[in-house]
Amino acid sequence: MSPTLVERLAEIVGVDNILMEPGDVAPYLADWRNAYRGRALAVVRPASTEAIAAVLRACIAASVGVVPQGGNTGMCGGATPSIEGNQIVLAMGRMNRVLNVDPLNNTITVEAGCILAAIQQSAEAAGRLFPLSLAAEGSCQIGGNLATNAGGINVLRYGNARDLVLGIEAVLPDGTIWNGLRALRKDNRGYDLKQLFIGSEGTLGIIAKAVLKLFPLPGETVTALIALDNPACAVQLLAQVRERCGDSISAYELMGHSCLELVSRHIPRARIPIEREYPWYLLVELGGVGDAPVRSALEATVAEAIDRGEVRDAVFAESVAQSEAFWRLRETIPEATIAEGAAFRSDISVSISSIATFVESATVAFVSRFPQSRIVCFGHVGDGNLHFNALLPPEYAQSDSIMRDMAGVLYDIVEEFDGSFSAEHGVGQAKRAELIRYKDGIEIDLMRRIKHVFDPLGIMNPGKLL
Amino acid sequence: MSPTLVERLAEIVGVDNILMEPGDVAPYLADWRNAYRGRALAVVRPASTEAIAAVLRACIAASVGVVPQGGNTGMCGGATPSIEGNQIVLAMGRMNRVLNVDPLNNTITVEAGCILAAIQQSAEAAGRLFPLSLAAEGSCQIGGNLATNAGGINVLRYGNARDLVLGIEAVLPDGTIWNGLRALRKDNRGYDLKQLFIGSEGTLGIIAKAVLKLFPLPGETVTALIALDNPACAVQLLAQVRERCGDSISAYELMGHSCLELVSRHIPRARIPIEREYPWYLLVELGGVGDAPVRSALEATVAEAIDRGEVRDAVFAESVAQSEAFWRLRETIPEATIAEGAAFRSDISVSISSIATFVESATVAFVSRFPQSRIVCFGHVGDGNLHFNALLPPEYAQSDSIMRDMAGVLYDIVEEFDGSFSAEHGVGQAKRAELIRYKDGIEIDLMRRIKHVFDPLGIMNPGKLL
Repeated sequence: MSPTLVERLAEIVGVDNILMEPGDVAPYLADWRNAYRGRALAVVRPASTEAIAAVLRACIAASVGVVPQGGNTGMCGGATPSIEGNQIVLAMGRMNRVLNVDPLNNTITVEAGCILAAIQQSAEAAGRLFPLSLAAEGSCQIGGNLATNAGGINVLRYGNARDLVLGIEAVLPDGTIWNGLRALRKDNRGYDLKQLFIGSEGTLGIIAKAVLKLFPLPGETVTALIALDNPACAVQLLAQVRERCGDSISAYELMGHSCLELVSRHIPRARIPIEREYPWYLLVELGGVGDAPVRSALEATVAEAIDRGEVRDAVFAESVAQSEAFWRLRETIPEATIAEGAAFRSDISVSISSIATFVESATVAFVSRFPQSRIVCFGHVGDGNLHFNALLPPEYAQSDSIMRDMAGVLYDIVEEFDGSFSAEHGVGQAKRAELIRYKDGIEIDLMRRIKHVFDPLGIMNPGKLL
Repeated sequence: MSPTLVERLAEIVGVDNILMEPGDVAPYLADWRNAYRGRALAVVRPASTEAIAAVLRACIAASVGVVPQGGNTGMCGGATPSIEGNQIVLAMGRMNRVLNVDPLNNTITVEAGCILAAIQQSAEAAGRLFPLSLAAEGSCQIGGNLATNAGGINVLRYGNARDLVLGIEAVLPDGTIWNGLRALRKDNRGYDLKQLFIGSEGTLGIIAKAVLKLFPLPGETVTALIALDNPACAVQLLAQVRERCGDSISAYELMGHSCLELVSRHIPRARIPIEREYPWYLLVELGGVGDAPVRSALEATVAEAIDRGEVRDAVFAESVAQSEAFWRLRETIPEATIAEGAAFRSDISVSISSIATFVESATVAFVSRFPQSRIVCFGHVGDGNLHFNALLPPEYAQSDSIMRDMAGVLYDIVEEFDGSFSAEHGVGQAKRAELIRYKDGIEIDLMRRIKHVFDPLGIMNPGKLL
């Protein structure tokens, strides 16, 4: 890095906030799973929107690419710099203030570097719920959540990250600050530009602040573990639960038998509370409002489904501890998978009504094409989002061509179902080939032309997404 | 119009579907209120996406502007052609098929010319709710609803039109068909391009089809008319109702005393069911799900507010007929205003928490600057959206400069509150000057550059929005 750029960046953020020593820089150069590794000229840690703007101006003048990084918990390498070492990492962690909580407007205004869990806590302290919730919530930052349009466990009820945003302040690549930090629920004055930044994975500019929606805290909560024969029954039951309990369903998670088997084997104290084994399980959670009797409504719905033979067994959590134990079964599937060995992982979506036939098609294809793989399928049925994964023997996992074939087989089926090869994880550097292969050329062309409008010199997160 | 273009368009849509006779064309040349009038080369009525594409290709070759028109119920002249008579109107009414209802995926797929009420009915026939609802629902078309990001009475619970869309098929100005007709609840494969079309008022291309979200039908419904001293009490009560009844609130409509006075005077059989007069009224509606006891929850919340002196009186509808009578009070305010005489009308939004101080500031400003105006203020408090209107003596209404001053005074206050001069009605041809005056230059510049990406020759709805 030319001394001039270092000096300029040091002026902007202070020498303490430019990291260049290998030990200091290392945590920013690989993603949390260590799946993607890069190098960087420096890590720059701005503390204000104006500082971000000045950093971008300096970088554009020096033709240096900028990789925005939040909590570094992404799944597709979108926040990891390239291996060439000619980019800077813009680490957002110092912009971590909650600026305003407005319980009457049901909004919270935050800086982009706020940890998700801290936002949840600030909301709760004001008697409100910020519903975005995902495994990394203790370390991921809201800026990254918005830049990747994060999903998580509450999408069914509250929507994706996109649906939780009223306004943003963003810094454009040329250092222009766009103030779209509105707290309005209705505003029809032209194109909704914030929508472009949400899900753009840092390729159009930097989200510096956001106004987010809050909700009433849920009242009575009920958590149930339900056993069924197949995904079709899970989809049927979802319709019945929605009819009876409406939008109080906050989670509806399907897990194949192999998921819970893995969890029992590898996770200490994990116990499946249903005695017999069944092919599929559901973790269902409802959060009532006020005095709404969600538990009795769910119990009645499930009882009727048992009578019809659509549900085989069900256990309702009798305490918070038990509910947490149920959740642990779901949440430790990734960890248990890692403990078992190599795996193929995916994050796909199809329409909810086609989940059952999709799982059937994909399973048949995998069993016939990759006979030594063991399928581990789980996901957010209520959103049509499945992690159709597979445990692999070493001879599969060590072969790049088999791994590519596996993705190809799965994504071709996803495409037949008009689904998405990336439901909630984004594209980053991991799925650029898939984007080109499966996305309509018309759409890619429009995306490139929009990218050019915002970032004609291509300094924002080069090599990601597009 | 050159014979070549007529011939070409006739080939595409058939001679019966090109209207050129003055009597045939007239209904398309003025908006429903007759506030905007224009002329057109022809009205063209395509019946398929491919026909729209061919029409656009013909128009671009002839450098002829295209004005998309749905039910022609807009409030800002966005669907009315210019007075020069050098544009064609593309009337979408023949594309009125419901293509698919998927109760398990909770989606409905429709052509853009579908009447909103027909979509509501198709959804209901499948045991589902399509919640977009507004006064013009018997004649407005979903394409127009999406192009203007329509609001209406259910926004508080279900969001704006934007929030109800999963996918669209759009025709770009050069005739390219973009197939974004997805039925996925999660799809993170790059920029969410549909968001640009929604709310773009026909300036980027033509929405041909859409996949829309459906919801469970509400269970028990309760409607109440509530009297209060001021908007601050209404905002307080909203927070209490949300805490107790959650997202079951589907409508929360504030009406100043003058609104109901007008309605009593001009609307046959309108009767205010609260005996004494109060300065402000609320129409509140909750729709439970399943067995949720929404009526008792609302009654308890209102009773407590009466005890605290925050609510003065309340009446709960005892029948569907009575609920409809309550709604008639709210829905006939515009009609009663017209019957009374000339008026200034607005469609603004501020944060919900600042509604009370906004109404105070705006009222003080109007009373002092325009002493002969009588304020008629009502709106969707739950969305921060008010119609801060005023009845005017003829000497005000006949003066363009007073009318402009009035808008200026109001919108300047809206701007101080970080609000929007167009909450749900859009910009069209009516509010282009306001867009330039109040919107950040950076944002207008980005909008123009995005417009150029989609429509470099400027044939889509020229003279609207931008």
